[in-house]
Amino acid sequence: MKKTYLFTPGPTMVPPEVALAEAQPMIHHRTPEFSKIFVEVTEGLKYLFQTKTCNVYTLASSGTGGMEACVVNILSKGDKALVIRGGKFGERWAEICEVFGVKVIPVDVEYGKAVEPELITPLLRQHRDVKAVFTTQSETSTGVICDISAIARIVKEESAALMIVDAISSICVHPLLMDDWGIDLAVTGSQKGFLLPPGLAFVCVNQNAMKAAEKSDLPKYYWSFKKMQKNLKDATTPFTPAVSLIRGLKVAIDMIKEEGIENVWQRHARLAHATREAVKALGLELFAGEYSSNVLTAVRSPNGLDTSAFLKKLRDKYGVSLAGGQDELKGKIFRIGHMGYVNDFDVITAISSVEKGLSECDYPVEIGKGVARAQEILLGEEEKVAVNTL
Amino acid sequence: MKKTYLFTPGPTMVPPEVALAEAQPMIHHRTPEFSKIFVEVTEGLKYLFQTKTCNVYTLASSGTGGMEACVVNILSKGDKALVIRGGKFGERWAEICEVFGVKVIPVDVEYGKAVEPELITPLLRQHRDVKAVFTTQSETSTGVICDISAIARIVKEESAALMIVDAISSICVHPLLMDDWGIDLAVTGSQKGFLLPPGLAFVCVNQNAMKAAEKSDLPKYYWSFKKMQKNLKDATTPFTPAVSLIRGLKVAIDMIKEEGIENVWQRHARLAHATREAVKALGLELFAGEYSSNVLTAVRSPNGLDTSAFLKKLRDKYGVSLAGGQDELKGKIFRIGHMGYVNDFDVITAISSVEKGLSECDYPVEIGKGVARAQEILLGEEEKVAVNTL
Repeated sequence: MKKTYLFTPGPTMVPPEVALAEAQPMIHHRTPEFSKIFVEVTEGLKYLFQTKTCNVYTLASSGTGGMEACVVNILSKGDKALVIRGGKFGERWAEICEVFGVKVIPVDVEYGKAVEPELITPLLRQHRDVKAVFTTQSETSTGVICDISAIARIVKEESAALMIVDAISSICVHPLLMDDWGIDLAVTGSQKGFLLPPGLAFVCVNQNAMKAAEKSDLPKYYWSFKKMQKNLKDATTPFTPAVSLIRGLKVAIDMIKEEGIENVWQRHARLAHATREAVKALGLELFAGEYSSNVLTAVRSPNGLDTSAFLKKLRDKYGVSLAGGQDELKGKIFRIGHMGYVNDFDVITAISSVEKGLSECDYPVEIGKGVARAQEILLGEEEKVAVNTL
Repeated sequence: MKKTYLFTPGPTMVPPEVALAEAQPMIHHRTPEFSKIFVEVTEGLKYLFQTKTCNVYTLASSGTGGMEACVVNILSKGDKALVIRGGKFGERWAEICEVFGVKVIPVDVEYGKAVEPELITPLLRQHRDVKAVFTTQSETSTGVICDISAIARIVKEESAALMIVDAISSICVHPLLMDDWGIDLAVTGSQKGFLLPPGLAFVCVNQNAMKAAEKSDLPKYYWSFKKMQKNLKDATTPFTPAVSLIRGLKVAIDMIKEEGIENVWQRHARLAHATREAVKALGLELFAGEYSSNVLTAVRSPNGLDTSAFLKKLRDKYGVSLAGGQDELKGKIFRIGHMGYVNDFDVITAISSVEKGLSECDYPVEIGKGVARAQEILLGEEEKVAVNTL
């Protein structure tokens, strides 16, 4: 008997209610029945993005497709864009821009650190013609959370550029206040905080971004916001939507609404805090230190640990999936996801598995110290963690 | 109590085995467990495309995304392409080409008719620099099947152009023999003959198309064949795949393999034949006449029938979804899908619903004549219908 536990930073665990909603009999996407669901999830998505004024489009694609949609809809060939790069996903913005002939002004940030928002002020002053600033709220490759509201404020004060956020892993974990923070365009994916399998991307577009879309000359067909907007008015999508996932989405959004988005943020803050403290109690180091995101905890692999063997043992022997580092971080970190369908016991289980795995890989840990510390925090009245509104 | 029946030409009904496979606990996509499934479905897809030499890529997108992937991977700006347009989906090839700066030489075909393959010979001789010929095997908007093998033969004889097929609704219904017919590139979607919900596209690419991909200068990131090929070697995808749908795909492919693809084609030929004969027995006219596809039966709306009211009654009163016409065919035809998870009783049910709906819309039909004719064919030993290998 082996139970499985998915603590990777996406895909994440799916509640059975959602999984069964996906398994309902198929319906056609140009019917009142589908439109009713689609209108409801679109309204629900606005709540998750904390917007009353934006449109939200639901795409059949993974998150990267949604990122490409952002680039090709609002920019033109030769446009300049400022791209904050502090990991694989920041770099992805730059790669997509470059493929489409957008000139990238990179703001490179050391892996494991967040950009200092003030750093972009001189760049915006130097490059008055920057059309867009691309950011990553939670950089999943390094576990870093970035101060989107501060960056948005600077972008609005210093330029006419559009403020664009990769919120793929952060929506439903960290607050992203589209309207209040003045975000023009944000993208997220279904397999992170959304309680859903992968296969959907959501793009939230305000009026500034829609205006930019009118002028954009980059080629687009499948990703066209105009087509999506035209069809949204008829409560459907331009191309066949991923119906089963959208039915799951309806249930997932209802679950999130019932808990209340503020409580969902709060839950993630608590669980992330407990995870970080437990990791430190085991004598391990947080890769992102003070910049750690509530989406996942990136842990620096201690000297002498064979990270691949450690992760393989957890998966094969105990059914627990954590993630390793990607690309140049491979072997240097491991990552514990705690987003979406996770509660106190999941954190305890994840930390328990880390203790087991380390000890079986002959890395010295004081058994029980991690789970005890997590337990202390999760049960302690005094440990109400303020929501990190970064 | 209202049971529902989905006889639309996509999405189609999903077997419960497949739906439940989708509802299994989520797994991470960079694990041996996922890779094992992914390798198996990729091999299975080769069987469905009847190829030993091509690569098949699985995309998280609807079919149109797969079509866009075909265009942007093999062509360059300013290239010429011959596009056969006999309906909405042929037109879609042209629209995508034009968006990306590909010059379209259209071959326009009357709605409801198939292109005469010989028509393209003079065009290929006149335009020696045509890089690709875009075709639609089963034009879902009109119910027409097109002779892909004959077109492919001409394309190979007359030119160096790549032969590209939209097989979105036809795979698993009509034979498409990638290797034997010399198809260079074909695309299909999950929500048609595949027994799956929408959300996946599959692209089958031969060596000629891969060579063309080396030279193509159109911008691509999410759709990049090169990225897909690189990741396919590691038994995964470049971006997070739609894991739940791929788990369903595994079960669906196993079901198709167990039946045998030749038997699957044969089943569709029989069911389509019975549907067409039943429709004619009711005094109705096939919109596509002798060109009728086995994917769906497009029926010309008889004079005096309010098609929208007829379809609405079937859906609202009897839970039966048929499809109307799209765009300029709206109100002029209705379409009965019979692909995927369909059997004899489904055809009888569909015809029964047509009789009910017509009679309740005060259109004179001889009650029972359609179902009786379908039954005769489905039960008649002598009525073994040869597989239409068009």
